[in-house]
Amino acid sequence: MSHDAPGLRPHAAAVDPSRHLIGLHDMPRERMLALLDRAQHFADGHDNRAALAGIAVCTLFFEPSTRTRLSFQLAAQRLGADVLNFDASTSSTSKGETARDTLKTIEAMGVHGFIVRAREDGAVAALAAEANPGTALINAGDGRSAHPTQGLLDMLTLRQAKGPDFPQLKVLIVGDVKHSRVARSDLHALRTLGTGEIRVCGPQALLPDDDTLRGCTVSHDFDAALEGVDVLMMLRLQRERMEEGRVSSLDDYHRDYGLTTERLARAAADAVVMHPGPMNRGVEITDEVADGPRSLVLRQVGNGVAVRMAVLEALLGHPR
Amino acid sequence: MSHDAPGLRPHAAAVDPSRHLIGLHDMPRERMLALLDRAQHFADGHDNRAALAGIAVCTLFFEPSTRTRLSFQLAAQRLGADVLNFDASTSSTSKGETARDTLKTIEAMGVHGFIVRAREDGAVAALAAEANPGTALINAGDGRSAHPTQGLLDMLTLRQAKGPDFPQLKVLIVGDVKHSRVARSDLHALRTLGTGEIRVCGPQALLPDDDTLRGCTVSHDFDAALEGVDVLMMLRLQRERMEEGRVSSLDDYHRDYGLTTERLARAAADAVVMHPGPMNRGVEITDEVADGPRSLVLRQVGNGVAVRMAVLEALLGHPR
Amino acid sequence: MSHDAPGLRPHAAAVDPSRHLIGLHDMPRERMLALLDRAQHFADGHDNRAALAGIAVCTLFFEPSTRTRLSFQLAAQRLGADVLNFDASTSSTSKGETARDTLKTIEAMGVHGFIVRAREDGAVAALAAEANPGTALINAGDGRSAHPTQGLLDMLTLRQAKGPDFPQLKVLIVGDVKHSRVARSDLHALRTLGTGEIRVCGPQALLPDDDTLRGCTVSHDFDAALEGVDVLMMLRLQRERMEEGRVSSLDDYHRDYGLTTERLARAAADAVVMHPGPMNRGVEITDEVADGPRSLVLRQVGNGVAVRMAVLEALLGHPR
Repeated sequence: MSHDAPGLRPHAAAVDPSRHLIGLHDMPRERMLALLDRAQHFADGHDNRAALAGIAVCTLFFEPSTRTRLSFQLAAQRLGADVLNFDASTSSTSKGETARDTLKTIEAMGVHGFIVRAREDGAVAALAAEANPGTALINAGDGRSAHPTQGLLDMLTLRQAKGPDFPQLKVLIVGDVKHSRVARSDLHALRTLGTGEIRVCGPQALLPDDDTLRGCTVSHDFDAALEGVDVLMMLRLQRERMEEGRVSSLDDYHRDYGLTTERLARAAADAVVMHPGPMNRGVEITDEVADGPRSLVLRQVGNGVAVRMAVLEALLGHPR
Repeated sequence: MSHDAPGLRPHAAAVDPSRHLIGLHDMPRERMLALLDRAQHFADGHDNRAALAGIAVCTLFFEPSTRTRLSFQLAAQRLGADVLNFDASTSSTSKGETARDTLKTIEAMGVHGFIVRAREDGAVAALAAEANPGTALINAGDGRSAHPTQGLLDMLTLRQAKGPDFPQLKVLIVGDVKHSRVARSDLHALRTLGTGEIRVCGPQALLPDDDTLRGCTVSHDFDAALEGVDVLMMLRLQRERMEEGRVSSLDDYHRDYGLTTERLARAAADAVVMHPGPMNRGVEITDEVADGPRSLVLRQVGNGVAVRMAVLEALLGHPR
Repeated sequence: MSHDAPGLRPHAAAVDPSRHLIGLHDMPRERMLALLDRAQHFADGHDNRAALAGIAVCTLFFEPSTRTRLSFQLAAQRLGADVLNFDASTSSTSKGETARDTLKTIEAMGVHGFIVRAREDGAVAALAAEANPGTALINAGDGRSAHPTQGLLDMLTLRQAKGPDFPQLKVLIVGDVKHSRVARSDLHALRTLGTGEIRVCGPQALLPDDDTLRGCTVSHDFDAALEGVDVLMMLRLQRERMEEGRVSSLDDYHRDYGLTTERLARAAADAVVMHPGPMNRGVEITDEVADGPRSLVLRQVGNGVAVRMAVLEALLGHPR
């Protein structure tokens, strides 16, 4: 079905954050705010078809993800780019070509932007270290490390719903933080924007034991953690965690960490609910909450295109 | 290989026929004639690259069909649209996402048109009932129910070959009408345009026993049914019908219902032959007929692009 | 994974070389030079977005090849074409449609250019013989017969590196010439341009015994063959040859025919190295050579897009 990106060294040396978007850990606050402002401009309905006219962008996915690929593809089209899709499962990587050779080959065709999804942690940074000076790589999710455009779109959505005063906010992240690149990018962004309180809640086996959660209030009791929060960020439960024995059953998970209307009542009266999708309805979230008035799930999706336009424009666009 | 569209209720409530194209059963004669006139304009070689400029259209196929997808894709490109392809067999539907969530997600990205192929009867209507007011769904074939653009392109082809006087025409539909969405859409369109006589012919096991054939002359004797007809609409024999025991053998089927040059001589001297493709050569039609001077098969294909341009423009285009 | 092109007659009658690009065997020297000149213009960074505006081009691959498909796709986009991709592994060919019917169907949709990759020798010529007068087919590789755009891009690369004086050049082709369509197209082009000396080297079992090597100096001793050559054209060793018993082991092959830095020292002091990719690093070429200063591998890739633009423009473009 999918392939690891072969030949990549995990945890490669740092790459220039002004040329590539690998993660949010090293993005300065000013840059983040500028991207969010520009994304809001696009979210308000503006295109900029001249920005990437004549520039070719290639999605390079070593792990399948239709919704993320479509979102980037739409963003690139609205900027006037030529868009190519490279699906590693039907490609010459199956003839033993390394990910590096694949990158260098497509780069040599005159492609300047790469949107890369990888299975291994650090794989996109390692590839970026091999790229030519004029090339930009955007991490569309690597392993459990980072999914920076998801982090940015979550911040945009949060700012639209709650305003720019992050120090006033209590945010609760719920679920499998340990294996979630979304949670890691959200945590970096929330800290950068100075969020008032960040709570994290999930079963012990699904919480990381490294410094991912520094500065967070950690809990295993969902009901208690919900008290007074302004924003709920629900994470997707990956079913393979049950096979690994980290979750006893989907029913138990739903009982302990599933978001229901009753539970949502414990949060602030105007609390909002986010989920990166695709949702396991009936597991981490009920239909009633997912489709209810507090849900920002579809607004997150729309903001994804806007954020990706802002990132592509900033890294690849002709000077404005 | 392909997936059912999960979570869909068959036979959903009627959807607004001015916003979506679900079937031809409820299309007024005036609207059908206007679409055919506009399609003729496109068939004459005109583009309209401004019609869908800046508008994104997504093919959403829960059942594979390359030729129909390409035809819609070309039509959308000639109207200036941004085109996305969503193949449900490599998508997040395999992660358990419902067809509804897939639609709502892509819709939230700012996509306004969906070209949907589904395995289940009524699946496209059910999805359309979930769509936002500004969204248009076009049925590219659902189960055995409907394939409205095929019906329209058949009418356009027929009108080009025989002129607009449908009450003068004798049309014969041959083959597996029971499982054919093409036949159902053709029957609706032929009745709407007031066709003089509609004959249907095929083995008992492959003819429907509901009101699909109302007003038709039904026969199991191909040679008799052919007498004097102006138009032959041959249907594709789906090989799985043989496995189901509905057809004893391909040889028997060809002997009883295969169109040969000899048989064609029983029809009117200027009778024309249509087939929606792909053809089983040597089964429902011989090479000699398929590639002969009476065959309209390739003209049908070309008209398909023109009809889809007319439909996309009518549902999604900027006002002319 | 992939499909033979069914229903094709190998070694079909000759097709008009001014309408299609099937191989380089019948391309006059003047036409080859004109294409190389125009390709150099594109390689210098020029686009021509008006050349194919409104013209639809379809990649029709009966054998998968991502890098060749992407290269053609980029070339077509830079000429302003509408580009469709037809992957025969997920198409109606799996419903038994012949390659001819697939071609005629997409042609009937108004597509004028086809980029065809086929498994069988002669398959593209056979298809071209079925095409309409206004249609152009470009062979993107068929069996072991021909890969003409690869031959042209190799000549362009060679001319950039060594100048236009081919009679002064000694060129050595190394490896599995027997099964290589790249080698066959290179040999035709090198002869057409009047190359001074063409040497061919490889194990007996991987050299052809027909007239492919006419006029070449043939050797099985790589070290001896290297003496004084200006250009090395390394070929990809296809791993299935080992399974067939034609190569005893990859280690043995590397020892006898692998290009190392030490070996490269036997060639002329300014010798250059080419490879069509994807490379088997450590088999026919070492990392040090592949990524070294003499390697033209990535320049070949870049020239591929330029050559394909020149070919598409010549066959399909609006008159300049």
